[in-house]
Amino acid sequence: MQRNPIKASIIGITGYTGLEQLRLLLAHPLVEIAHLTSRQHENAAIGEVYPHLAHLDLSITNTDHMQVAKDSDVVFLALPHKTAQDIVADLHGKVRVIDLSADYRLDDAAVYEKYYVPHNHPALLKEVAYGAPEFNGEKIAAASTVANPGCFALLAQLMLYPLAGLIETVDIMAVTGSSGSGKTASDGTHHPVRSHNMKSYNINKHRHIPEITRTAKIEEVQLNFVPTSGPFSRGIFASAFVHLKADIEPLDLAEQAYTDAPFVRLTGTPELANVVGSNFCDLSYVKGVGQSVIVQGALDNLVKGAAGCAVQNMNLMFGFDETEGLDVLAPLYP
Amino acid sequence: MQRNPIKASIIGITGYTGLEQLRLLLAHPLVEIAHLTSRQHENAAIGEVYPHLAHLDLSITNTDHMQVAKDSDVVFLALPHKTAQDIVADLHGKVRVIDLSADYRLDDAAVYEKYYVPHNHPALLKEVAYGAPEFNGEKIAAASTVANPGCFALLAQLMLYPLAGLIETVDIMAVTGSSGSGKTASDGTHHPVRSHNMKSYNINKHRHIPEITRTAKIEEVQLNFVPTSGPFSRGIFASAFVHLKADIEPLDLAEQAYTDAPFVRLTGTPELANVVGSNFCDLSYVKGVGQSVIVQGALDNLVKGAAGCAVQNMNLMFGFDETEGLDVLAPLYP
Amino acid sequence: MQRNPIKASIIGITGYTGLEQLRLLLAHPLVEIAHLTSRQHENAAIGEVYPHLAHLDLSITNTDHMQVAKDSDVVFLALPHKTAQDIVADLHGKVRVIDLSADYRLDDAAVYEKYYVPHNHPALLKEVAYGAPEFNGEKIAAASTVANPGCFALLAQLMLYPLAGLIETVDIMAVTGSSGSGKTASDGTHHPVRSHNMKSYNINKHRHIPEITRTAKIEEVQLNFVPTSGPFSRGIFASAFVHLKADIEPLDLAEQAYTDAPFVRLTGTPELANVVGSNFCDLSYVKGVGQSVIVQGALDNLVKGAAGCAVQNMNLMFGFDETEGLDVLAPLYP
Amino acid sequence: MQRNPIKASIIGITGYTGLEQLRLLLAHPLVEIAHLTSRQHENAAIGEVYPHLAHLDLSITNTDHMQVAKDSDVVFLALPHKTAQDIVADLHGKVRVIDLSADYRLDDAAVYEKYYVPHNHPALLKEVAYGAPEFNGEKIAAASTVANPGCFALLAQLMLYPLAGLIETVDIMAVTGSSGSGKTASDGTHHPVRSHNMKSYNINKHRHIPEITRTAKIEEVQLNFVPTSGPFSRGIFASAFVHLKADIEPLDLAEQAYTDAPFVRLTGTPELANVVGSNFCDLSYVKGVGQSVIVQGALDNLVKGAAGCAVQNMNLMFGFDETEGLDVLAPLYP
Repeated sequence: MQRNPIKASIIGITGYTGLEQLRLLLAHPLVEIAHLTSRQHENAAIGEVYPHLAHLDLSITNTDHMQVAKDSDVVFLALPHKTAQDIVADLHGKVRVIDLSADYRLDDAAVYEKYYVPHNHPALLKEVAYGAPEFNGEKIAAASTVANPGCFALLAQLMLYPLAGLIETVDIMAVTGSSGSGKTASDGTHHPVRSHNMKSYNINKHRHIPEITRTAKIEEVQLNFVPTSGPFSRGIFASAFVHLKADIEPLDLAEQAYTDAPFVRLTGTPELANVVGSNFCDLSYVKGVGQSVIVQGALDNLVKGAAGCAVQNMNLMFGFDETEGLDVLAPLYP
Repeated sequence: MQRNPIKASIIGITGYTGLEQLRLLLAHPLVEIAHLTSRQHENAAIGEVYPHLAHLDLSITNTDHMQVAKDSDVVFLALPHKTAQDIVADLHGKVRVIDLSADYRLDDAAVYEKYYVPHNHPALLKEVAYGAPEFNGEKIAAASTVANPGCFALLAQLMLYPLAGLIETVDIMAVTGSSGSGKTASDGTHHPVRSHNMKSYNINKHRHIPEITRTAKIEEVQLNFVPTSGPFSRGIFASAFVHLKADIEPLDLAEQAYTDAPFVRLTGTPELANVVGSNFCDLSYVKGVGQSVIVQGALDNLVKGAAGCAVQNMNLMFGFDETEGLDVLAPLYP
Repeated sequence: MQRNPIKASIIGITGYTGLEQLRLLLAHPLVEIAHLTSRQHENAAIGEVYPHLAHLDLSITNTDHMQVAKDSDVVFLALPHKTAQDIVADLHGKVRVIDLSADYRLDDAAVYEKYYVPHNHPALLKEVAYGAPEFNGEKIAAASTVANPGCFALLAQLMLYPLAGLIETVDIMAVTGSSGSGKTASDGTHHPVRSHNMKSYNINKHRHIPEITRTAKIEEVQLNFVPTSGPFSRGIFASAFVHLKADIEPLDLAEQAYTDAPFVRLTGTPELANVVGSNFCDLSYVKGVGQSVIVQGALDNLVKGAAGCAVQNMNLMFGFDETEGLDVLAPLYP
Repeated sequence: MQRNPIKASIIGITGYTGLEQLRLLLAHPLVEIAHLTSRQHENAAIGEVYPHLAHLDLSITNTDHMQVAKDSDVVFLALPHKTAQDIVADLHGKVRVIDLSADYRLDDAAVYEKYYVPHNHPALLKEVAYGAPEFNGEKIAAASTVANPGCFALLAQLMLYPLAGLIETVDIMAVTGSSGSGKTASDGTHHPVRSHNMKSYNINKHRHIPEITRTAKIEEVQLNFVPTSGPFSRGIFASAFVHLKADIEPLDLAEQAYTDAPFVRLTGTPELANVVGSNFCDLSYVKGVGQSVIVQGALDNLVKGAAGCAVQNMNLMFGFDETEGLDVLAPLYP
């Protein structure tokens, strides 16, 4: 059956997330671009802002988001947190929305406020589906608006989900590439140091913590989370030491959990080089001393950790095959 | 018009070139894979050899090349030079062949022997089309066998081609990523040093030199060529200092030369980050002191410098759109 | 008081450890070089083997180790494990020896055999001092032979030593640079992949595990150890999640433990960039959830993790100031 | 003969140049630090600003530069251009000054103004010695104030100096590490892109051009200069294509020129990895086609290209051995 393409727009095209969203939508056979908007680069050819896209005949506008919604079947919001709050509220129910910000990832306004800012639309939090296709697929398929997960948070949840309910304590060390810091230069992404450095930050204070605990059925009091900057551009590589309440075979649980998950691979040792550029999340489960399990995971923070997961959510929302448009994106190896 | 896919095979799948060929063919809507062969990894699932492809249901065999030809519409040879000589001779005329080795890139057996080894099939050299689509498209379209260019050589030719016939002297400094050395570890690709090093090698002795001079209508006596190892994985970044016989506007000539070349972009300053992962070759032409021109170029050595150019050649040979299957591969930025 | 320099020799100059030993000894004001030996590069100028040392007027010979001992006050062995066993036995008591191999790091021959090979001189294991200056200084000062620690092992011990006796469980994730793999190129150090990869290996099987447990008064059954390859050349960055038997102030304990340790710094957040090139080990102790502590550490694997620690040991053995010759080596920042 | 140490101060300690100057002065046996000044970090312990120096008991103050001069034998100015103009004028003749800014590198105020800003003290330009020890040693030894060369400029001059007077045209491609951009983060040093990119900038417009032509006895009309950003932290790797007026043996000329230059090595193929961390400049001269020569050079931009050259100049000014305090800084290899 031949399908007509849907019209997709990106609000907030200038950051790395919006940019990656565009890369993936351009490769999707059932999508055509309606609007690309930005306040910062209004009325520029895409190639002026991003010379690597100089071959494209696409322009950036400052079209109002209500107009964008009218012209689109789906709208991707690639905006900073807080900015997205009101726009999602405006668009919800009028067009399919995939929000890549943090604004609707938590279902509790108090927790959101603790980690971010006050929330203008607390009631809406319950209506937005959390966009983790591997364990929330049905709600996503039925949703008008989806909150796309945070990159650290999705990886941690995918790692812990098969063990949910069995966890005594969990300690996570997660190393992220510099693209996770976004497009704006800062001390932390200054190449002379970053190029050969490792450094942890926001230990047990990172905003992705409440997102992690939400799904894995663990509580924050049992979790140490150590985000760390690594000397590479793309990817997150995480190790979790899980002390369990029981002696189980973790890989069996993982295989059950991910039988129907086309982008989760349990086939070997996770490596960044095996996933970068693609929507895959590679996971391993190794039994450790006592009742401990060493769980490791790797994904591309801009693909499976952001724009690729968003396409997966879009596929579910529109009844496309879950891998549509994503299967042509093999890892860029080496 | 709906087209039936053609059957493509890769002989020599274990190196980086064969691997990249597979990545690109998998993304091509008009291709299906017939055989993937290797002597080294006979009868292995592709994911055993390359874990980043663990999701694929494809196997590597040691099928005889004549049988491969019977089952295929096009065969890609990703073999070392010398090894390809006889196989091309066996297959020529029986199936479309795109040879990624160096064996049929030169049309003069004596020159080939000087830089490589003796040639078993000197007469065949004249029948094989040189696979540079930007200035040999008609011959490629009509050819049974195409010799895919060397990565340095194609970049240098694309840089110099608009200036052909006007060149007094040309000096090229070309910096290559480590993937250009192939999949086998060696001192030159040992990470502790390569990660922050630059070093030139084979100055004025590199095997791509006769290939460069062939098309640009310059002679070897006018060319200094300095290949250099750089601390990155993918890409070649080259600078050519061209002293001309006349005072011309080089960019005008380049725009004329590349009006119909969908993968050559003259829109800005070449950067590796703007081309890696894609089939683009970015070029710039800046007038220098006196009658000199500074030409710079960047491409991905494994895509436009190898497997992507091969797909472009395949598209021409089968009457597909020249960009078919390549346009979904935007640069992986950042 | 003016001291006469001592005569130092290096047996096994061709690897990265021997090379770094030479760098540090050349900067030491109380040392002069007697012999540099190698079987592989016999009778070569040092600059032929290592062009970065082309300015030095030093030669590599294959002088017999007994002759080396006669001409030296101290001999550094930078040999592979097993090879060093008999040479240490020959030299022990005749000259001060600092063995950078693994052969005398463990005091139990059965454990050594489990992780390495059988030991020819089990009785000697008890006579050799373990070369961790921060908690074994007195024995080192009195020793004829010192076994220099492994790089992972020393870092882990320095991290855990202040908590010894209080540990319930400990999980360590340690990321090492590629120079830790030595001078010989291999798949794991192949730049095209290593340059942007992370990958764990030998989980709970690494040879440094019995060395770690020796000093920290923990047992192997309580330890998970995850060695990991990182995309940088020098350094180890480790995170330990320690679940304690009691609720204590870990930083207080660390400050007590390292009052007199000139190369341990507790002043901030460990970063590779702050220690590379120097003999410093930076440590941090952060209280986590429950009775857990997050301990992090960074050092240069070739300096504090090998040749710098060896100089520190030499200083103790000869009654020099512990920092002599090491204080001029500030971190190479950025 | 035992010498008393001289008192050295650094004005402008917060950037990479001032920081590297401190690293080198701390390793110098005949120097003690008097003042470290900064307007930005007044009254901070050095370890607060630079944690890698947390072990040092040194403070940053905002002491007036005239007071600094009174308390010092030599003052190093690590300030931006323009800022240094008046301070040098204040200090000249009252204390030995080594100015690492660009303000006194050119002897012609009109040329300086063309590339920078107007000069407040044009007459002083002739009194300041240009600090290239390899061809201006006598003037440096006699000078009160020395202008330390630019990093690109010194490398290019060292490459071309032996050929001075014989040059018909010269084309230079010079690749610099990111530390050359200084301590402040910017788009050009943003790690997600810089980590695997190459890109040229300021072609034939770079401020070091008039400095290059000054010594090499070539004119700007004969020079193309292509500065390029490379994906590494430290070092400059440059290639010059020199078309000569005569057929000469360039290496003979270079050996004559550098007989007494302890930090210029002509012994092999220049590589960044062979010089980083040290004061060496490695050069090679290879005859090319026709009467061309391919000259290559490598140095550490912060050492030989800045602070190390400044120490060399200080040594000459105070009658120390030219290598004093610099010979302990071997290249940090690998």
